[in-house]
Amino acid sequence: MNRQHETILLAHGSGGLMSHRLVTDLFLKHFDNDSLASLNDSALLGNLPERTTLAFTTDSYVISPLFFPGGDIGKLAVCGTVNDLAVTGAVPRYLSAGFVLEEGLSMGDLERAVASMAETAALAGVQIVTGDTKVVERGAADGLFINTAGIGFIPTGLNMSPTHLQPGDALIASGTLGDHGIAVMLNREGMAFESDLVSDCAPLNGLIAALLAACPEGIRCMRDPTRGGLVATLHEWSETAGLGVVVEEESLPIRETVRAACELLGLDPLYAANEGKVIVGVAENVAERALAALRAHPLGRDAAIIGRLSEEHPERVVLETPYGAQRLLDMLVGDQLPRIC
Amino acid sequence: MNRQHETILLAHGSGGLMSHRLVTDLFLKHFDNDSLASLNDSALLGNLPERTTLAFTTDSYVISPLFFPGGDIGKLAVCGTVNDLAVTGAVPRYLSAGFVLEEGLSMGDLERAVASMAETAALAGVQIVTGDTKVVERGAADGLFINTAGIGFIPTGLNMSPTHLQPGDALIASGTLGDHGIAVMLNREGMAFESDLVSDCAPLNGLIAALLAACPEGIRCMRDPTRGGLVATLHEWSETAGLGVVVEEESLPIRETVRAACELLGLDPLYAANEGKVIVGVAENVAERALAALRAHPLGRDAAIIGRLSEEHPERVVLETPYGAQRLLDMLVGDQLPRIC
Repeated sequence: MNRQHETILLAHGSGGLMSHRLVTDLFLKHFDNDSLASLNDSALLGNLPERTTLAFTTDSYVISPLFFPGGDIGKLAVCGTVNDLAVTGAVPRYLSAGFVLEEGLSMGDLERAVASMAETAALAGVQIVTGDTKVVERGAADGLFINTAGIGFIPTGLNMSPTHLQPGDALIASGTLGDHGIAVMLNREGMAFESDLVSDCAPLNGLIAALLAACPEGIRCMRDPTRGGLVATLHEWSETAGLGVVVEEESLPIRETVRAACELLGLDPLYAANEGKVIVGVAENVAERALAALRAHPLGRDAAIIGRLSEEHPERVVLETPYGAQRLLDMLVGDQLPRIC
Repeated sequence: MNRQHETILLAHGSGGLMSHRLVTDLFLKHFDNDSLASLNDSALLGNLPERTTLAFTTDSYVISPLFFPGGDIGKLAVCGTVNDLAVTGAVPRYLSAGFVLEEGLSMGDLERAVASMAETAALAGVQIVTGDTKVVERGAADGLFINTAGIGFIPTGLNMSPTHLQPGDALIASGTLGDHGIAVMLNREGMAFESDLVSDCAPLNGLIAALLAACPEGIRCMRDPTRGGLVATLHEWSETAGLGVVVEEESLPIRETVRAACELLGLDPLYAANEGKVIVGVAENVAERALAALRAHPLGRDAAIIGRLSEEHPERVVLETPYGAQRLLDMLVGDQLPRIC
């Protein structure tokens, strides 16, 4: 069935025959698993690990444009939710998918996004087990919004929280910062052709599992620095821990193309969204081991120790320049990059 | 803090300071629980019942208008997901909430919807434990869309499925049909003042728990007949079970105002959405007991046996008139009532 010239109609959201066909011909074709195929409104998930803690998260994705260098809204909707689970120490297992479609959306674009979700879910080892589709009239939404919620299981004894951070702990970034935000921004500005920069959008559960295996003790907390970038994550941590955060400017892994684009566009890579990076707070004595574990994984090759926790200037995030000067990294009041995820 | 004159800005979705304030001043104020208050991207849910089956569901709500007689998008977003869990036999426990806000949405309207979610969640005994907010520019969404995903636990041994339906089984509706769809439609057409009809929007987990307690055996399956109404539910069941469904026209509980409005608007109440009703398939020998259990609950006072499963005309849904004539109830191809949930 060639859908490239079809578009979404209001009837696809009716709960009638066309809804039914959209589910069977498109969603079931790509998201192939027993839970979804039963077509119940709820997925039934048996054989749960016992004495476990369940991690539960949700994110809506409204990124514009839907397709960008290095990814698309479907890939992002899987990675973002998988990563939110993985940073708690959970093994991500099940996702839901809620689609809001604008009447007139091309069926080809929808199928491309759905196929990308399926491919990314397979890569991450998660199943899309339940879903929902709504259609709104032309002009009432911008093409396609996707919500994913996710369930994962946290092994007994694992407890990640920024409340565990101690003065002297090291901060590690798993790779270069700002790639997603700046790649999408260049694409929007029509400047993508001038660079080979792509979004870092990737599921991090494999990288994080390798890190936890290498360092069963000493990992305090993890976070994927998406909207608001590195600085938003560090602000939350410094406030929660009641400690200061010192970031060493020289140590920050930032691509030259990102630096150059930021200068051109008046942006700061430390506030730009990442979709395939994790920030890790670790006890000082395991920092080198953690760094080595990250660097041994394809998604962590550019990992670096970027700073430390400090008793000085509690609840502040400070950038230390190579010359020893310090400046505050404030939380942004406004929006640097709307609709970046 | 008086928010009635404030509106949503793009900066509320930035991941920066204004996002943070929206979460703490609005969402945490209304959705007050430890999991959400930890402000992690994932909720951590411990003390799971052992040897249980987990039910997981999602729905996006795009109803227009946001406020209607008998409910609003917030109440609907909680009831719809609670009900999807409850009809599996699950005890609903945890919800996620994903908001897509249009720039310019009134903060007063948002708070009204959020307060309504909180009130309905308390009524249903569920917690909203994790959430996400995105803001899109003016014109890129229609005010407010809400996605809720939900988690519930199914007691060991309970297994609801339309595959269990047998010829001779009875079909019960827990109350009057079409109230939600027609109430919203009258409201849209500016005719709400002419009737006292309100949406039936309600969490059904209490009603369903009472039913299961009264009939530990013999309940085959349940479904809340939302989009597509009674007929969509019965079509799914007849196809899944490979049986015919016979609906007795005379037995259908339909309000006079709904009948009259349907004649006026050219609609059919059997295809109209319900948001506080459950259809139950039961073994013939427990049908009267099930009916009595439903009628004993405030949300089931108008419950009625409306039909039966049959070996005749498999995979067809047939309406039987008081004069013994039969007509097919086809699945609608198109959309009777767009954006009804």
